[in-house]
Amino acid sequence: MCSYLDGTVNLYMRPEEGVTVAVDLDEMRIVGFVDRVTVPVPKPNGTDYSGLQKRVGPALKRIGLVQPDGPSFAVDGHMIRWANWEFHLSFDVRAGPIISLSLIYDAEQQEFRQVMYRGFISELFVPYMDLTEEWYYRTFFDAGEYGFGLYAVQLEPLRDCPENAAFMDAYIAGQDRKPIKMSNVFRVFERYAGDIRWHHTELGIPGKVIREVRPEVNLVVRMVSTVGNYDYIVDWEFKQSGSIKATVGLTGLLEVRGSNYTHNDQIADEEYGVLLAENTLSAPHDHFLIFHLDLDIDSDSNSFVKFVFRQTPVTDRRSPRKSYWSVVSETAKTKSDTKIKLGSEQVELLVVNPGKKTKVGNRVGYRLIPGSITQPLLSDDDYAQIRRAFTKYNVWVTPYNTSEKWAGGLYTDQSNGEDTLATWTQRAMENKDIVLWYTLGFPHAPYQEDFPLMLTLSSGFELRPANFFESNPVLRVIPPGVVEWPNCSIPSVI
Amino acid sequence: MCSYLDGTVNLYMRPEEGVTVAVDLDEMRIVGFVDRVTVPVPKPNGTDYSGLQKRVGPALKRIGLVQPDGPSFAVDGHMIRWANWEFHLSFDVRAGPIISLSLIYDAEQQEFRQVMYRGFISELFVPYMDLTEEWYYRTFFDAGEYGFGLYAVQLEPLRDCPENAAFMDAYIAGQDRKPIKMSNVFRVFERYAGDIRWHHTELGIPGKVIREVRPEVNLVVRMVSTVGNYDYIVDWEFKQSGSIKATVGLTGLLEVRGSNYTHNDQIADEEYGVLLAENTLSAPHDHFLIFHLDLDIDSDSNSFVKFVFRQTPVTDRRSPRKSYWSVVSETAKTKSDTKIKLGSEQVELLVVNPGKKTKVGNRVGYRLIPGSITQPLLSDDDYAQIRRAFTKYNVWVTPYNTSEKWAGGLYTDQSNGEDTLATWTQRAMENKDIVLWYTLGFPHAPYQEDFPLMLTLSSGFELRPANFFESNPVLRVIPPGVVEWPNCSIPSVI
Repeated sequence: MCSYLDGTVNLYMRPEEGVTVAVDLDEMRIVGFVDRVTVPVPKPNGTDYSGLQKRVGPALKRIGLVQPDGPSFAVDGHMIRWANWEFHLSFDVRAGPIISLSLIYDAEQQEFRQVMYRGFISELFVPYMDLTEEWYYRTFFDAGEYGFGLYAVQLEPLRDCPENAAFMDAYIAGQDRKPIKMSNVFRVFERYAGDIRWHHTELGIPGKVIREVRPEVNLVVRMVSTVGNYDYIVDWEFKQSGSIKATVGLTGLLEVRGSNYTHNDQIADEEYGVLLAENTLSAPHDHFLIFHLDLDIDSDSNSFVKFVFRQTPVTDRRSPRKSYWSVVSETAKTKSDTKIKLGSEQVELLVVNPGKKTKVGNRVGYRLIPGSITQPLLSDDDYAQIRRAFTKYNVWVTPYNTSEKWAGGLYTDQSNGEDTLATWTQRAMENKDIVLWYTLGFPHAPYQEDFPLMLTLSSGFELRPANFFESNPVLRVIPPGVVEWPNCSIPSVI
Repeated sequence: MCSYLDGTVNLYMRPEEGVTVAVDLDEMRIVGFVDRVTVPVPKPNGTDYSGLQKRVGPALKRIGLVQPDGPSFAVDGHMIRWANWEFHLSFDVRAGPIISLSLIYDAEQQEFRQVMYRGFISELFVPYMDLTEEWYYRTFFDAGEYGFGLYAVQLEPLRDCPENAAFMDAYIAGQDRKPIKMSNVFRVFERYAGDIRWHHTELGIPGKVIREVRPEVNLVVRMVSTVGNYDYIVDWEFKQSGSIKATVGLTGLLEVRGSNYTHNDQIADEEYGVLLAENTLSAPHDHFLIFHLDLDIDSDSNSFVKFVFRQTPVTDRRSPRKSYWSVVSETAKTKSDTKIKLGSEQVELLVVNPGKKTKVGNRVGYRLIPGSITQPLLSDDDYAQIRRAFTKYNVWVTPYNTSEKWAGGLYTDQSNGEDTLATWTQRAMENKDIVLWYTLGFPHAPYQEDFPLMLTLSSGFELRPANFFESNPVLRVIPPGVVEWPNCSIPSVI
């Protein structure tokens, strides 16, 4: 595919539509050439995003996060310790960050307890909804075909992170088998956004007002990967409460197609894509990210449980109410219990340790709070969909199998779908080492605001303790001190 | 209802179950007394959340947000100006914060443009799933019955907000008709969490690496309201990109019921609630918040549009693909088009100005990106559900009517449901002044970690420009400067 760079550094905005060149990379020779259509190259106006362009508007005043006593975490090789957490952070050329061996210190039981054996992004799938010759095959697997880690960008201190970040390098094998150092691919930092961890004001006690509030400060591991035009920001966030949150932000350049159209009124029949600027169409597409989440709650003998919120009609006049809902627990036993489509019923999904209970007899566990819930919109017999059948359910559960890591197949670009998550045998899985798979989906119908560069759109999920602790684990935790900046003042009220 | 305070300040954790006292408030005299059941009062152990309790664990180091040059916003009476935004913030004893007259400056058109005429929380609904005599009627309307503004708490500088906050007072009418001042009910501050507004690294141009990144800095208006045991944190957040985001955080104390049970094994039949500690049951419940969102996109002549993402099978061999999806636009015309249940199909919901188009012919608009999507779990004939029938759809659209503000009825505690949103006539509404209603739902099945005090659980929605601007509106905006703290250092790597 060819792009024209005149008037912009944004090569994705000026495609030479319909021009395809076949190159023999061994011989470095052009072996074929097709010029299929003649449409204008989109105009460069307003597409250059580089900092050299003229800037407009008043600047916001300086703002920053400071920790005058330094950060509260320690990095020891690949082990990271912060507050009540410790975990291992490693880099994979395919998956990017891998969080493993995560343990949380339980202040009541006075011991470290297992939470997540391993968590990572197993695959990304980005199919475009344009069936023209140069586009129909654009159904990218960004991990398996490109390498989500391979395209990690070098993060810069004080540019895209608060000052209190630590950086970590990674090494990959070069094509000549020599190690290549990738600098600053991870940053680790404490996140404070002015959010409130918990709050209560009690006015109900005569003669007293009790007001308690604690700030939310968390630990974040960040990687940014640029796979072609799109940039993905991946944050793994750890909370003192025991939650692990993963957030993915999508930003970067749109892919667009050159076109004769300069106005919607000229489009009579259906066209693949939306007109974003003169001669510039952009096709709808999806971003699916599937996470491999191997929780080990207090051991690797776990079960997958669905809490169904079920309405019960009341007909026996025991109450003026006619209904209520309660929680019905269903433990996954058969294959069909382990493929979950969310949205139709109100459920909570848990991984529990059936061998361990709290003092009052609840099974200890963690629950998955999903973010965006997306259904695939391709037909089952579409080759693209056959290869990414893992998108068909929002959540899957499999027994742990060391060879079952890559939801889109081990050699993704050669896979016909037969070695993907959707085909893996679902064996008995009560009280076993199980893996949870969650697909985070972003269907993307472009708007003009995404042109030429899309602002970060984020979603993710949370793994939250669910009867894992006997009670609120951070009720008595000492909060961080307050930083007072010497010369600050509150704004004048006119 | 009675509570026992011995051993804790947490009066919600020690209910005297089954004891009901009827009091004549004019005569200040007890006129009735029922002691229906005899169950133990839950133990006080671990339920005191006050700061006087012994604290545990190592403290995190000091962390803070600083703006050495002061904040970038200005407060002029009730008008707030920040970056490209201006809006009016007022206080309502029932709704809490009301955002109105919001305008955004369009740097390309060099004019202020209308976005939201008025946005506020119209009602909160919190029904408990316990049908015993003292509980079945607990189906609270926190705005209409209590006053979400009335229970706003006084926010304290540097305690529950970053240093750069401005505070605003409110006045309400006392029962003697004299004004009562409520201090510091709102705080306004700039939010910086180390997030990335946009990023792109370009590796595709031979001999060059272009890397651009901009930090995300937004303006937030916050109010915290404590209605009995629960505390709600309401954030209205404004972005330079044109987005308005509302986030509600739920925190505070659980309501619990005394019980004879000390272990789950003793519970033979179904019981209302989950055992969280010895003698302490807690019933599932919902939190529904319905937002009144009166968008006026460039005027008050607007239409409601649904973008449906529709799969199209491909059978004509024009492509090796067998399917794709495209966006089908449906403008609401009939009553049934204005009640939306989300979850079953992939849609985007927009308010557009049919009289105004972008240069290439897209209708200017804003879209609603919903957060949690919840269906009610009470039967339609339940009196509680009749009164809160507005929860039956996730989104409603009504033509603007000055008397239709309160989704749960004007005099909520006397309403039988006949004056609520679900009954309002849906008249013609193309190219009219329309109001969008969105219900944010939190079904809450308690876990032991919520005992005695629940950590903040947040959700919300975003109103995002959708072909409102000709292109990305912040591409060339000057980013805020970097704050370098003099004595900072990155953590030592061991």
